[in-house]
Amino acid sequence: MRAQGGLFLAVEGIDGSGKSGIVQHLAARLRAHGRDVVVTREPGGTPEGEAIRGLVLAGADEAWDPMAELLLMTAARVQHVRRVIAPALEAGSVVLSDRYAGSTLAYQGTGRGLSESFIRALHAEATGDLWPDLTLILDLDAATGLARSRRRLTGSAIDEGRFESLDLAFHERIRQSFRAQAARDPARHAVIDASGTPEQVQARALAALEPLLAAAR
Amino acid sequence: MRAQGGLFLAVEGIDGSGKSGIVQHLAARLRAHGRDVVVTREPGGTPEGEAIRGLVLAGADEAWDPMAELLLMTAARVQHVRRVIAPALEAGSVVLSDRYAGSTLAYQGTGRGLSESFIRALHAEATGDLWPDLTLILDLDAATGLARSRRRLTGSAIDEGRFESLDLAFHERIRQSFRAQAARDPARHAVIDASGTPEQVQARALAALEPLLAAAR
Repeated sequence: MRAQGGLFLAVEGIDGSGKSGIVQHLAARLRAHGRDVVVTREPGGTPEGEAIRGLVLAGADEAWDPMAELLLMTAARVQHVRRVIAPALEAGSVVLSDRYAGSTLAYQGTGRGLSESFIRALHAEATGDLWPDLTLILDLDAATGLARSRRRLTGSAIDEGRFESLDLAFHERIRQSFRAQAARDPARHAVIDASGTPEQVQARALAALEPLLAAAR
Repeated sequence: MRAQGGLFLAVEGIDGSGKSGIVQHLAARLRAHGRDVVVTREPGGTPEGEAIRGLVLAGADEAWDPMAELLLMTAARVQHVRRVIAPALEAGSVVLSDRYAGSTLAYQGTGRGLSESFIRALHAEATGDLWPDLTLILDLDAATGLARSRRRLTGSAIDEGRFESLDLAFHERIRQSFRAQAARDPARHAVIDASGTPEQVQARALAALEPLLAAAR
Protein backbone atom coordinates (compact mmCIF):
# COMPACT_ATOMS: atom_id res chain seq x y z
CA MET A 1 0.00 0.00 0.00
CA ARG A 2 1.11 3.51 -0.77
CA ALA A 3 1.46 5.62 2.35
CA GLN A 4 -0.18 9.02 2.80
CA GLY A 5 1.63 11.45 0.56
CA GLY A 6 3.65 8.86 -1.36
CA LEU A 7 3.65 9.89 -4.99
CA PHE A 8 5.21 8.18 -7.99
CA LEU A 9 6.10 10.40 -10.95
CA ALA A 10 7.86 9.41 -14.16
CA VAL A 11 9.22 11.60 -16.92
CA GLU A 12 9.28 10.10 -20.42
CA GLY A 13 10.16 11.32 -23.89
CA ILE A 14 12.52 10.84 -26.79
CA ASP A 15 16.24 11.57 -26.53
CA GLY A 16 16.83 15.30 -26.34
CA SER A 17 13.36 16.08 -24.98
CA GLY A 18 14.90 17.39 -21.77
CA LYS A 19 13.89 14.70 -19.29
CA SER A 20 16.81 14.95 -16.89
CA GLY A 21 16.60 18.74 -16.67
CA ILE A 22 12.89 18.55 -15.88
CA VAL A 23 13.49 15.85 -13.26
CA GLN A 24 16.08 18.04 -11.53
CA HIS A 25 13.84 21.09 -11.68
CA LEU A 26 10.76 19.31 -10.34
CA ALA A 27 12.82 17.71 -7.56
CA ALA A 28 14.12 21.12 -6.47
CA ARG A 29 10.63 22.63 -6.48
CA LEU A 30 9.10 19.72 -4.58
CA ARG A 31 11.87 19.88 -1.98
CA ALA A 32 11.33 23.62 -1.65
CA HIS A 33 7.75 22.74 -0.72
CA GLY A 34 9.03 20.41 2.02
CA ARG A 35 8.60 17.10 0.23
CA ASP A 36 11.08 14.26 0.54
CA VAL A 37 12.04 13.43 -3.06
CA VAL A 38 13.86 10.36 -4.38
CA VAL A 39 15.33 11.05 -7.83
CA THR A 40 16.11 7.96 -9.85
CA ARG A 41 16.33 6.69 -13.41
CA GLU A 42 15.87 3.73 -15.72
CA PRO A 43 17.41 1.57 -16.82
CA GLY A 44 19.31 1.70 -13.55
CA GLY A 45 18.42 3.10 -10.18
CA THR A 46 20.13 0.28 -8.24
CA PRO A 47 23.68 -1.11 -8.44
CA GLU A 48 22.30 -4.21 -10.21
CA GLY A 49 20.17 -2.13 -12.56
CA GLU A 50 23.10 0.11 -13.43
CA ALA A 51 25.13 -3.01 -14.28
CA ILE A 52 22.32 -4.14 -16.60
CA ARG A 53 22.21 -0.65 -18.13
CA GLY A 54 25.93 -0.97 -18.83
CA LEU A 55 25.42 -4.35 -20.54
CA VAL A 56 22.61 -3.14 -22.77
CA LEU A 57 23.97 0.28 -23.71
CA ALA A 58 27.51 -0.99 -24.31
CA GLY A 59 26.34 -3.52 -26.89
CA ALA A 60 26.40 -2.95 -30.63
CA ASP A 61 23.02 -2.16 -32.21
CA GLU A 62 22.27 -5.79 -33.02
CA ALA A 63 24.01 -7.42 -30.05
CA TRP A 64 20.79 -8.02 -28.15
CA ASP A 65 17.74 -9.75 -29.46
CA PRO A 66 14.70 -7.51 -28.74
CA MET A 67 13.18 -10.12 -26.42
CA ALA A 68 16.43 -10.41 -24.44
CA GLU A 69 16.57 -6.62 -24.20
CA LEU A 70 12.99 -6.55 -22.87
CA LEU A 71 13.83 -9.14 -20.22
CA LEU A 72 16.97 -7.24 -19.16
CA MET A 73 15.08 -3.96 -18.88
CA THR A 74 12.37 -5.68 -16.85
CA ALA A 75 14.95 -7.38 -14.60
CA ALA A 76 16.47 -3.98 -13.88
CA ARG A 77 12.98 -2.64 -13.17
CA VAL A 78 12.24 -5.43 -10.68
CA GLN A 79 15.31 -4.44 -8.66
CA HIS A 80 14.36 -0.79 -8.97
CA VAL A 81 10.76 -1.26 -7.84
CA ARG A 82 11.47 -3.61 -4.96
CA ARG A 83 14.62 -1.96 -3.60
CA VAL A 84 14.03 1.74 -4.28
CA ILE A 85 10.60 2.79 -5.54
CA ALA A 86 8.25 0.72 -3.35
CA PRO A 87 10.14 1.42 -0.08
CA ALA A 88 10.24 5.15 -0.86
CA LEU A 89 6.51 5.24 -1.61
CA GLU A 90 5.81 3.33 1.59
CA ALA A 91 7.80 5.96 3.47
CA GLY A 92 5.60 8.68 1.98
CA SER A 93 8.23 10.14 -0.36
CA VAL A 94 7.86 11.47 -3.87
CA VAL A 95 9.65 9.21 -6.36
CA LEU A 96 10.71 10.97 -9.54
CA SER A 97 12.04 8.62 -12.20
CA ASP A 98 13.79 9.61 -15.42
CA ARG A 99 12.11 6.95 -17.64
CA TYR A 100 10.07 3.97 -16.46
CA ALA A 101 7.83 1.33 -18.06
CA GLY A 102 6.55 3.74 -20.70
CA SER A 103 10.01 3.63 -22.26
CA THR A 104 9.79 -0.15 -22.47
CA LEU A 105 6.46 0.06 -24.28
CA ALA A 106 7.94 2.65 -26.62
CA TYR A 107 11.41 1.24 -27.33
CA GLN A 108 10.97 -2.52 -27.03
CA GLY A 109 7.31 -2.50 -28.11
CA THR A 110 6.79 0.10 -30.82
CA GLY A 111 10.50 0.39 -31.61
CA ARG A 112 11.59 -3.22 -31.73
CA GLY A 113 8.26 -4.86 -32.51
CA LEU A 114 7.48 -6.85 -29.36
CA SER A 115 3.85 -7.36 -28.43
CA GLU A 116 2.44 -4.62 -26.21
CA SER A 117 0.16 -7.09 -24.45
CA PHE A 118 3.12 -9.33 -23.58
CA ILE A 119 5.12 -6.36 -22.29
CA ARG A 120 2.17 -5.29 -20.10
CA ALA A 121 1.60 -8.84 -18.81
CA LEU A 122 5.29 -9.22 -17.98
CA HIS A 123 5.31 -5.84 -16.25
CA ALA A 124 2.27 -6.85 -14.18
CA GLU A 125 3.84 -10.14 -13.09
CA ALA A 126 7.28 -8.67 -12.44
CA THR A 127 6.37 -5.48 -10.57
CA GLY A 128 2.92 -6.19 -9.12
CA ASP A 129 1.64 -3.90 -11.89
CA LEU A 130 3.12 -0.74 -10.40
CA TRP A 131 2.52 2.31 -12.59
CA PRO A 132 3.24 5.97 -11.80
CA ASP A 133 0.50 8.18 -10.42
CA LEU A 134 1.44 10.55 -13.20
CA THR A 135 3.75 10.21 -16.19
CA LEU A 136 4.89 13.45 -17.80
CA ILE A 137 5.45 12.92 -21.52
CA LEU A 138 7.88 15.53 -22.85
CA ASP A 139 6.60 15.80 -26.39
CA LEU A 140 9.00 17.01 -29.04
CA ASP A 141 9.47 16.39 -32.74
CA ALA A 142 12.23 13.89 -33.38
CA ALA A 143 14.42 16.22 -35.46
CA THR A 144 14.61 18.80 -32.65
CA GLY A 145 15.26 16.07 -30.10
CA LEU A 146 18.10 14.56 -32.10
CA ALA A 147 19.68 17.97 -32.72
CA ARG A 148 19.59 18.79 -28.98
CA SER A 149 20.88 15.36 -28.11
CA ARG A 150 23.82 15.64 -30.55
CA ARG A 151 24.76 19.03 -29.11
CA ARG A 152 24.80 17.55 -25.65
CA LEU A 153 26.98 14.60 -26.67
CA THR A 154 29.63 16.71 -28.43
CA GLY A 155 32.86 16.59 -26.51
CA SER A 156 31.61 13.85 -24.20
CA ALA A 157 34.10 11.05 -23.59
CA ILE A 158 31.34 8.64 -22.60
CA ASP A 159 29.42 7.19 -25.50
CA GLU A 160 26.12 5.85 -24.25
CA GLY A 161 24.89 6.71 -27.71
CA ARG A 162 23.45 3.39 -28.80
CA PHE A 163 19.84 4.49 -28.62
CA GLU A 164 20.82 7.86 -30.06
CA SER A 165 22.32 6.38 -33.20
CA LEU A 166 19.01 5.10 -34.48
CA ASP A 167 17.39 7.14 -37.20
CA LEU A 168 14.88 9.95 -37.27
CA ALA A 169 11.92 7.82 -38.38
CA PHE A 170 12.55 5.51 -35.43
CA HIS A 171 12.53 8.42 -32.96
CA GLU A 172 9.34 9.76 -34.47
CA ARG A 173 7.69 6.35 -33.94
CA ILE A 174 8.86 6.43 -30.32
CA ARG A 175 7.34 9.88 -29.91
CA GLN A 176 4.02 8.66 -31.28
CA SER A 177 4.14 5.65 -28.94
CA PHE A 178 4.40 7.97 -25.91
CA ARG A 179 1.48 10.04 -27.21
CA ALA A 180 -0.57 6.89 -27.73
CA GLN A 181 0.17 5.77 -24.16
CA ALA A 182 -1.12 9.11 -22.90
CA ALA A 183 -4.25 8.86 -25.07
CA ARG A 184 -4.93 5.34 -23.75
CA ASP A 185 -4.80 6.44 -20.08
CA PRO A 186 -5.19 10.25 -19.93
CA ALA A 187 -5.84 10.34 -16.16
CA ARG A 188 -2.30 9.15 -15.45
CA HIS A 189 -0.43 10.98 -18.21
CA ALA A 190 0.26 14.60 -19.06
CA VAL A 191 1.63 15.51 -22.48
CA ILE A 192 3.94 18.50 -22.12
CA ASP A 193 5.05 20.57 -25.09
CA ALA A 194 8.85 20.25 -24.81
CA SER A 195 9.71 22.84 -27.43
CA GLY A 196 10.95 26.29 -26.42
CA THR A 197 13.28 27.33 -23.63
CA PRO A 198 13.97 25.16 -20.55
CA GLU A 199 12.11 27.75 -18.45
CA GLN A 200 9.01 27.46 -20.62
CA VAL A 201 9.02 23.65 -20.42
CA GLN A 202 9.61 23.76 -16.65
CA ALA A 203 6.59 26.02 -16.19
CA ARG A 204 4.42 23.65 -18.25
CA ALA A 205 5.61 20.61 -16.28
CA LEU A 206 4.93 22.29 -12.94
CA ALA A 207 1.47 23.31 -14.10
CA ALA A 208 0.71 19.70 -15.09
CA LEU A 209 1.80 18.55 -11.65
CA GLU A 210 -0.20 21.15 -9.73
CA PRO A 211 -3.54 19.28 -9.45
CA LEU A 212 -1.81 16.20 -8.05
CA LEU A 213 0.17 18.22 -5.52
CA ALA A 214 -2.93 20.13 -4.48
CA ALA A 215 -4.77 16.84 -3.93
CA ALA A 216 -1.87 15.49 -1.84
CA ARG A 217 -1.82 18.56 0.43
CA MET B 1 11.99 -26.46 -38.28
CA ARG B 2 14.64 -28.89 -37.08
CA ALA B 3 16.69 -30.34 -39.94
CA GLN B 4 17.20 -34.04 -40.48
CA GLY B 5 19.56 -35.26 -37.78
CA GLY B 6 19.43 -32.11 -35.65
CA LEU B 7 19.24 -33.18 -32.02
CA PHE B 8 19.02 -31.07 -28.86
CA LEU B 9 20.35 -32.65 -25.67
CA ALA B 10 20.62 -31.06 -22.24
CA VAL B 11 22.36 -32.34 -19.13
CA GLU B 12 20.91 -31.26 -15.79
CA GLY B 13 21.61 -32.03 -12.17
CA ILE B 14 22.72 -30.51 -8.88
CA ASP B 15 26.22 -29.14 -8.36
CA GLY B 16 28.74 -31.95 -8.21
CA SER B 17 26.56 -34.38 -10.17
CA GLY B 18 29.19 -34.50 -12.94
CA LYS B 19 27.40 -32.61 -15.70
CA SER B 20 30.42 -31.11 -17.47
CA GLY B 21 32.31 -34.43 -17.50
CA ILE B 22 29.29 -36.18 -19.02
CA VAL B 23 28.88 -33.43 -21.60
CA GLN B 24 32.53 -33.79 -22.67
CA HIS B 25 32.29 -37.58 -22.79
CA LEU B 26 29.08 -37.64 -24.83
CA ALA B 27 30.46 -35.04 -27.23
CA ALA B 28 33.57 -37.15 -27.84
CA ARG B 29 31.50 -40.29 -28.44
CA LEU B 30 29.07 -38.54 -30.77
CA ARG B 31 31.94 -37.03 -32.75
CA ALA B 32 33.58 -40.45 -32.99
CA HIS B 33 30.36 -41.54 -34.66
CA GLY B 34 30.69 -38.76 -37.20
CA ARG B 35 28.21 -36.30 -35.73
CA ASP B 36 28.77 -32.57 -35.69
CA VAL B 37 28.41 -31.55 -32.02
CA VAL B 38 27.99 -28.08 -30.55
CA VAL B 39 28.90 -28.08 -26.85
CA THR B 40 27.48 -25.18 -24.90
CA ARG B 41 26.28 -24.19 -21.44
CA GLU B 42 23.87 -22.09 -19.44
CA PRO B 43 23.76 -19.52 -18.18
CA GLY B 44 26.04 -18.41 -20.99
CA GLY B 45 26.73 -19.85 -24.40
CA THR B 46 26.99 -16.45 -26.10
CA PRO B 47 29.13 -13.38 -25.29
CA GLU B 48 25.99 -11.63 -24.02
CA GLY B 49 24.88 -14.67 -22.01
CA GLU B 50 28.31 -15.02 -20.44
CA ALA B 51 28.14 -11.36 -19.41
CA ILE B 52 24.78 -12.04 -17.76
CA ARG B 53 26.25 -15.13 -16.08
CA GLY B 54 28.98 -12.90 -14.68
CA LEU B 55 26.42 -10.44 -13.31
CA VAL B 56 24.33 -13.09 -11.59
CA LEU B 57 27.10 -15.28 -10.21
CA ALA B 58 29.20 -12.35 -9.00
CA GLY B 59 26.37 -11.00 -6.86
CA ALA B 60 25.97 -11.65 -3.17
CA ASP B 61 23.30 -14.22 -2.27
CA GLU B 62 20.59 -11.63 -1.79
CA ALA B 63 21.72 -9.14 -4.44
CA TRP B 64 19.16 -10.27 -6.98
CA ASP B 65 15.47 -10.51 -6.40
CA PRO B 66 14.31 -13.99 -7.57
CA MET B 67 12.12 -12.46 -10.29
CA ALA B 68 15.03 -10.36 -11.60
CA GLU B 69 17.22 -13.47 -11.59
CA LEU B 70 14.59 -15.37 -13.60
CA LEU B 71 14.41 -12.58 -16.17
CA LEU B 72 18.21 -12.44 -16.47
CA MET B 73 18.46 -16.21 -16.95
CA THR B 74 15.72 -16.08 -19.57
CA ALA B 75 17.38 -13.14 -21.35
CA ALA B 76 20.59 -15.16 -21.56
CA ARG B 77 18.57 -18.11 -22.88
CA VAL B 78 16.97 -16.00 -25.61
CA GLN B 79 20.42 -15.07 -26.93
CA HIS B 80 21.54 -18.69 -26.60
CA VAL B 81 18.55 -20.15 -28.44
CA ARG B 82 18.45 -17.63 -31.26
CA ARG B 83 22.17 -17.23 -31.87
CA VAL B 84 23.54 -20.72 -31.10
CA ILE B 85 21.03 -23.52 -30.50
CA ALA B 86 18.44 -22.91 -33.22
CA PRO B 87 21.00 -22.29 -36.00
CA ALA B 88 22.94 -25.44 -35.02
CA LEU B 89 19.77 -27.55 -35.02
CA GLU B 90 18.81 -26.11 -38.39
CA ALA B 91 22.23 -27.16 -39.68
CA GLY B 92 21.59 -30.73 -38.52
CA SER B 93 24.06 -30.68 -35.62
CA VAL B 94 23.77 -32.19 -32.18
CA VAL B 95 23.54 -29.48 -29.51
CA LEU B 96 24.72 -30.59 -26.10
CA SER B 97 24.04 -28.06 -23.36
CA ASP B 98 25.35 -28.14 -19.81
CA ARG B 99 22.12 -26.93 -18.12
CA TYR B 100 19.08 -25.42 -19.85
CA ALA B 101 15.52 -24.48 -18.88
CA GLY B 102 15.23 -27.38 -16.41
CA SER B 103 17.69 -25.51 -14.20
CA THR B 104 15.46 -22.45 -14.25
CA LEU B 105 12.46 -24.51 -13.15
CA ALA B 106 14.62 -26.04 -10.41
CA TYR B 107 16.58 -23.04 -9.11
CA GLN B 108 14.25 -20.09 -9.70
CA GLY B 109 11.04 -22.13 -9.38
CA THR B 110 11.47 -24.74 -6.67
CA GLY B 111 14.53 -23.06 -5.17
CA ARG B 112 13.46 -19.45 -5.03
CA GLY B 113 9.71 -19.89 -5.01
CA LEU B 114 8.61 -18.44 -8.35
CA SER B 115 5.53 -19.90 -10.01
CA GLU B 116 6.29 -22.84 -12.32
CA SER B 117 3.44 -21.86 -14.63
CA PHE B 118 4.85 -18.35 -15.02
CA ILE B 119 8.33 -19.71 -15.71
CA ARG B 120 6.91 -22.06 -18.37
CA ALA B 121 4.80 -19.30 -19.97
CA LEU B 122 7.80 -16.95 -20.06
CA HIS B 123 9.96 -19.70 -21.56
CA ALA B 124 7.34 -20.35 -24.24
CA GLU B 125 7.08 -16.68 -25.20
CA ALA B 126 10.83 -16.03 -25.06
CA THR B 127 12.14 -19.12 -26.89
CA GLY B 128 9.22 -20.26 -29.03
CA ASP B 129 8.83 -23.04 -26.43
CA LEU B 130 12.04 -24.81 -27.42
CA TRP B 131 12.75 -27.84 -25.23
CA PRO B 132 15.44 -30.49 -25.65
CA ASP B 133 14.65 -33.75 -27.43
CA LEU B 134 16.14 -35.38 -24.37
CA THR B 135 17.26 -34.04 -21.00
CA LEU B 136 19.62 -36.26 -19.03
CA ILE B 137 19.05 -35.74 -15.31
CA LEU B 138 22.19 -36.71 -13.38
CA ASP B 139 20.57 -37.83 -10.16
CA LEU B 140 22.69 -37.73 -7.01
CA ASP B 141 22.01 -37.17 -3.35
CA ALA B 142 22.82 -33.63 -2.29
CA ALA B 143 25.46 -34.55 0.30
CA THR B 144 27.55 -36.47 -2.26
CA GLY B 145 27.14 -33.68 -4.79
CA LEU B 146 28.25 -31.01 -2.35
CA ALA B 147 31.26 -33.07 -1.25
CA ARG B 148 32.37 -33.57 -4.88
CA SER B 149 31.76 -29.96 -5.65
CA ARG B 150 33.85 -28.78 -2.68
CA ARG B 151 36.76 -31.02 -3.69
CA ARG B 152 36.65 -29.53 -7.18
CA LEU B 153 36.63 -25.95 -5.92
CA THR B 154 39.58 -26.42 -3.56
CA GLY B 155 42.54 -24.44 -4.77
CA SER B 156 40.52 -22.70 -7.45
CA ALA B 157 41.21 -19.00 -7.75
CA ILE B 158 37.87 -18.41 -9.41
CA ASP B 159 34.91 -18.30 -7.07
CA GLU B 160 31.73 -18.84 -9.00
CA GLY B 161 30.49 -20.46 -5.83
CA ARG B 162 27.34 -18.47 -5.22
CA PHE B 163 24.96 -21.34 -6.00
CA GLU B 164 27.29 -23.77 -4.24
CA SER B 165 27.14 -21.90 -0.95
CA LEU B 166 23.47 -22.67 -0.41
CA ASP B 167 22.68 -25.41 2.04
CA LEU B 168 22.13 -29.12 1.78
CA ALA B 169 18.36 -28.98 2.16
CA PHE B 170 18.22 -26.52 -0.71
CA HIS B 171 20.23 -28.84 -2.98
CA GLU B 172 18.02 -31.76 -2.04
CA ARG B 173 14.96 -29.73 -3.09
CA ILE B 174 16.67 -28.96 -6.40
CA ARG B 175 17.33 -32.67 -6.91
CA GLN B 176 13.67 -33.46 -6.30
CA SER B 177 12.64 -30.74 -8.73
CA PHE B 178 14.68 -32.37 -11.50
CA ARG B 179 13.14 -35.76 -10.69
CA ALA B 180 9.65 -34.24 -10.78
CA GLN B 181 10.37 -32.67 -14.18
CA ALA B 182 11.35 -36.10 -15.49
CA ALA B 183 8.20 -37.69 -14.01
CA ARG B 184 6.05 -35.02 -15.65
CA ASP B 185 7.45 -35.66 -19.14
CA PRO B 186 9.19 -39.06 -19.15
CA ALA B 187 9.46 -39.27 -22.95
CA ARG B 188 11.88 -36.34 -23.01
CA HIS B 189 13.83 -37.04 -19.83
CA ALA B 190 16.17 -39.78 -18.66
CA VAL B 191 17.10 -40.00 -14.98
CA ILE B 192 20.68 -41.28 -14.70
CA ASP B 193 22.12 -42.61 -11.45
CA ALA B 194 25.13 -40.31 -10.99
CA SER B 195 26.71 -42.20 -8.11
CA GLY B 196 29.76 -44.40 -8.67
CA THR B 197 32.80 -43.83 -10.87
CA PRO B 198 32.81 -41.47 -13.85
CA GLU B 199 33.07 -44.50 -16.15
CA GLN B 200 29.94 -46.05 -14.64
CA VAL B 201 27.96 -42.83 -15.05
CA GLN B 202 29.26 -42.37 -18.61
CA ALA B 203 28.05 -45.87 -19.55
CA ARG B 204 24.60 -45.15 -18.09
CA ALA B 205 24.35 -41.84 -19.95
CA LEU B 206 25.36 -43.43 -23.27
CA ALA B 207 22.82 -46.21 -22.79
CA ALA B 208 20.08 -43.62 -22.16
CA LEU B 209 21.03 -41.85 -25.37
CA GLU B 210 21.17 -45.00 -27.51
CA PRO B 211 17.48 -45.21 -28.55
CA LEU B 212 17.53 -41.60 -29.74
CA LEU B 213 20.75 -42.10 -31.72
CA ALA B 214 19.43 -45.31 -33.24
CA ALA B 215 16.27 -43.47 -34.32
CA ALA B 216 18.35 -40.67 -35.87
CA ARG B 217 20.44 -43.08 -37.94
